[in-house]
Amino acid sequence: MPVGRGGAGLCVCGLECLDDALDLVEVSPGLDKRLRMMIKNSARFIRFHDGARVHGNDTDRTGLLMVLKGSLRAYLLSSSGRECTLFRVEEGECYALSCSRLLSLVTFDLFLDADGTTELLVVDSEVYNRVAVECLAAEAFAYRQAAMRFSDAMWVMEQVLFMRLEARVAAFLLDEVARRRRDSLSLTHDELARHIGSAREAVSRVLKQLDRRGVVLLSRGRVDVLDKRALRALVGV
Amino acid sequence: MPVGRGGAGLCVCGLECLDDALDLVEVSPGLDKRLRMMIKNSARFIRFHDGARVHGNDTDRTGLLMVLKGSLRAYLLSSSGRECTLFRVEEGECYALSCSRLLSLVTFDLFLDADGTTELLVVDSEVYNRVAVECLAAEAFAYRQAAMRFSDAMWVMEQVLFMRLEARVAAFLLDEVARRRRDSLSLTHDELARHIGSAREAVSRVLKQLDRRGVVLLSRGRVDVLDKRALRALVGV
Repeated sequence: MPVGRGGAGLCVCGLECLDDALDLVEVSPGLDKRLRMMIKNSARFIRFHDGARVHGNDTDRTGLLMVLKGSLRAYLLSSSGRECTLFRVEEGECYALSCSRLLSLVTFDLFLDADGTTELLVVDSEVYNRVAVECLAAEAFAYRQAAMRFSDAMWVMEQVLFMRLEARVAAFLLDEVARRRRDSLSLTHDELARHIGSAREAVSRVLKQLDRRGVVLLSRGRVDVLDKRALRALVGV
Repeated sequence: MPVGRGGAGLCVCGLECLDDALDLVEVSPGLDKRLRMMIKNSARFIRFHDGARVHGNDTDRTGLLMVLKGSLRAYLLSSSGRECTLFRVEEGECYALSCSRLLSLVTFDLFLDADGTTELLVVDSEVYNRVAVECLAAEAFAYRQAAMRFSDAMWVMEQVLFMRLEARVAAFLLDEVARRRRDSLSLTHDELARHIGSAREAVSRVLKQLDRRGVVLLSRGRVDVLDKRALRALVGV
């Protein structure tokens, strides 16, 4: 759930900060003053708690999202509640797949959750649509964002299709260690399974094997990575 | 392998036919005469035999592809030779993911094979790049094509992640029957397994169960679909 508009140093910077944020969209050079004002007037700051649903089939909070702080996790969700993380939208990046212009092309449901306390600038979808109609750079930007995420998602798909579960667990742990810049991960077996779209029981089995081999050290709600070289060997890199 | 440039009524139609084909790209209204001539001068007709590799990491035949006849099958390929079909590019459609402009964003290897004798119009990648720099409509077009294929690929990924193998086989058979407009499919168990990215043994087991239940009739290199309603029930639609 959003905890309100503005806050934590955001409301005080106002339009000036918004100008900086708009530069993230990279289309700024193509925007004339009027289009830029259209975007500015529609943009809202929203802060989300860790784990809050930012976008999905039960929310209407759509538009171009710019991550000012924190990050977003994009994942597929099955009707039975199984998940698979496809990619993350990190600080300073944009997410365009929740623009209605793209939603009309993209027929699958992608869910977005806040990963840690996350502050977003949301440009209203209809406003961005109107801007994109007048400014081809804005349109190309949104599609290009989608193409980049396609690439991320395909990397995950290749893992799901072609990698053994042990290698996928190893790849996930290496990614997380790099992303969080620490070898000690606060992570349950269930969370790990949801990230890689696998069953908890199977993931637990792999983790226990890695623990026995001294590659990781398991404790309650925590995985400590002890031997990155061994993990890299499992991934085959 | 391509069987030569032009042929089968293509070489005789020349530039006139090319004009029609260019309209496929939908960006034509945004192209001035000079850009249109740039594309025209670079475009080549190529015909491929059934099953020929059109694009992949071992070919350099890249660019914007327009399917004039036949169709292309896009698939992921593992280092051990396993495949998973992601989508098809049908007659009258374009494929932009082999343009270098997109290849720089899209880091995964997607393979393209001709499905049946297939005739393509190929706009050279570098030429399309130069056109896209001058014409934002051409750039947006290429990215939009990628976003649409993203959607197709995610539908397959949801199947791989969340559907039981029986349901995936059923979904594939229903798609093929609709696509080929006939209930009798010339298809080996191995081919079906490659399309859905699964193991032949597992697919054979499912097909034999369906045969025993009278849903399909198996014979050498052939699957006859007898009961589409039962297949739809398996898919859950």
